Amino acid sequence: MNGELMAAEIAEQPAVYARILRDGQPRIADVAAAVRARGPRFVLFIARGTSDHAALYAKYLVETHLGLPAGLASPSTMTVYDAHPRMADVLAIAVSQSGTSPDLVTPLTRARAGGAITVAVTNAPDSALARAAEFHLDVHAGPERAVAATKSYTAELLTLYLFVALLAGEDGAEAAVLPDHAAALLARREAVDALAVRYRFAEQIVVTARGYNYATAREVALKLMETSYLVAHAFSGADLLHGPMAIIARGFPVIAVVPTGAGGAALRPVLERLREREADTLIVGDPDAARFGTVGLPLPETVPEPLSPLLAILPLQQFAWCLARQRGGDPDQPRGLQKVTETW
Amino acid sequence: MNGELMAAEIAEQPAVYARILRDGQPRIADVAAAVRARGPRFVLFIARGTSDHAALYAKYLVETHLGLPAGLASPSTMTVYDAHPRMADVLAIAVSQSGTSPDLVTPLTRARAGGAITVAVTNAPDSALARAAEFHLDVHAGPERAVAATKSYTAELLTLYLFVALLAGEDGAEAAVLPDHAAALLARREAVDALAVRYRFAEQIVVTARGYNYATAREVALKLMETSYLVAHAFSGADLLHGPMAIIARGFPVIAVVPTGAGGAALRPVLERLREREADTLIVGDPDAARFGTVGLPLPETVPEPLSPLLAILPLQQFAWCLARQRGGDPDQPRGLQKVTETW
Repeated sequence: MNGELMAAEIAEQPAVYARILRDGQPRIADVAAAVRARGPRFVLFIARGTSDHAALYAKYLVETHLGLPAGLASPSTMTVYDAHPRMADVLAIAVSQSGTSPDLVTPLTRARAGGAITVAVTNAPDSALARAAEFHLDVHAGPERAVAATKSYTAELLTLYLFVALLAGEDGAEAAVLPDHAAALLARREAVDALAVRYRFAEQIVVTARGYNYATAREVALKLMETSYLVAHAFSGADLLHGPMAIIARGFPVIAVVPTGAGGAALRPVLERLREREADTLIVGDPDAARFGTVGLPLPETVPEPLSPLLAILPLQQFAWCLARQRGGDPDQPRGLQKVTETW
Repeated sequence: MNGELMAAEIAEQPAVYARILRDGQPRIADVAAAVRARGPRFVLFIARGTSDHAALYAKYLVETHLGLPAGLASPSTMTVYDAHPRMADVLAIAVSQSGTSPDLVTPLTRARAGGAITVAVTNAPDSALARAAEFHLDVHAGPERAVAATKSYTAELLTLYLFVALLAGEDGAEAAVLPDHAAALLARREAVDALAVRYRFAEQIVVTARGYNYATAREVALKLMETSYLVAHAFSGADLLHGPMAIIARGFPVIAVVPTGAGGAALRPVLERLREREADTLIVGDPDAARFGTVGLPLPETVPEPLSPLLAILPLQQFAWCLARQRGGDPDQPRGLQKVTETW
């Protein structure tokens, strides 16, 4: 193998988006209606790894669209310290590609026993996690075989986007443009491959964003660690200013995800500081922000910002893949990893 | 200056612990009683930087000791996207040394307007954040002048520990041993200085832990970034297995915080994987785990694990300080940083 699995799964994403919009949406609407009738007052996400980044994205949606406070569970409080939290009026949402890891199944089971409304979002309807939840949402990504998750991540993003939109009484219709935009973005792979060349000898990198795309920054960093073994560190723009900015010396490589919209605008003070410190900044997104960076990778400007993470990640998955190949690695066989990670 | 400010503040911590136990506890008990009477059902923390690590620690305590679900707020949903979450029955706790950053004041004010019970935990009783909250807890650290926060972090930890213990109907008496243990640990500074020598040319490092000490790992990584410009990345042990393990090549420097207790025991599978991958692992804590590492830094074994983060961080603050000095830096003047970081 030479990364064919991962490349094929990256390329499938426009079709996965179309499938969720067509086949997934009715079930999402049913579950949203049932959950809405129960009036949850607090939302708790349970996830690990790539799916934890999808959960982080959904946490922002819950706070902004639903107007409910939300948190990411720390599974070890239940699996290691045996906590039994009281969960009445809590909507607990577990997110996982495989649905098998005990440190997700235990907290979801515990949440349900504690009175929570439980939803599992997985790519595995027959999994232990799907069975443990009162409601299951299949993300319809199809079998994912590459170790580095790509299509299951974006399938989770869209499923969660639609679920939160429908919970909030919206219709999610603005997502209909995603398959076409995704296909157009992925068609620019040669440009991404050419861009990756200059990172051939990079050993570390910082990825930053604010708001909805903080999840994108986290996921890009993980892909770069998994496939290219780069020490890649994601920071929200605000957190970067609280200390880590000190590591940024002249020429330090940074990727900034800067969509058109409030989240991109809020990153401007961070971009200014990066420019002062003479970082080497790749701007992904708003062409208007390109003056802060060394190189740019534009994104469609017409998509509402809450949907931008579903597009911004696509060229960056390709970037991680291209860089891994250029560095002589096989993105399908990352050292030290297996497809399904079981943790306790 | 040559790091004298930071060194002095590190050394003050046993006295700060004693002051909180003596002068801080009555007020903590009053606020805990008032909050307890209101019966909060969810806890939301609002913090940035070092104080966010103190909040992360307290989140674990809330889940395990109080048995309530908890989350860390994403300030940008309110400051950038103008969310107005419904907050009835929510206990919102903002944590900040200076109490001035707008992206903490806005969410706490918004939480209060949305019906939350609000508590500010700061080192600045006259700050905007202290005034914005219904209740204020002074962490009694005294003026902190070093850019890299040390005594305000541990003062926040102890204040939050006592607050959660009293909220849970416990008395927090087990914390009485902290000043003596802290003084004994800090007296071993020469050994820490000798240990730091071998990291003179390290460029990157991974810090890992599980449970209560995940906060320690995050805080150590931040101190190393701030003072020594090391690209330091903290992972919970479980998250490290979900992908980032791929960056660990032979000889890669790792710090593992392994207290005696369930959290340390739960890290064993991670330590085994690190040993397989021939990482260079510094074990901080349990002497029994030393066989997984190259070098060790023992911690007192008699302290209950929930209190271990209040001790484990101390030699690691010294470690960051010593390494910065050995690398020719001034820990009191980290490049690119100011003492008070204001973000929006």
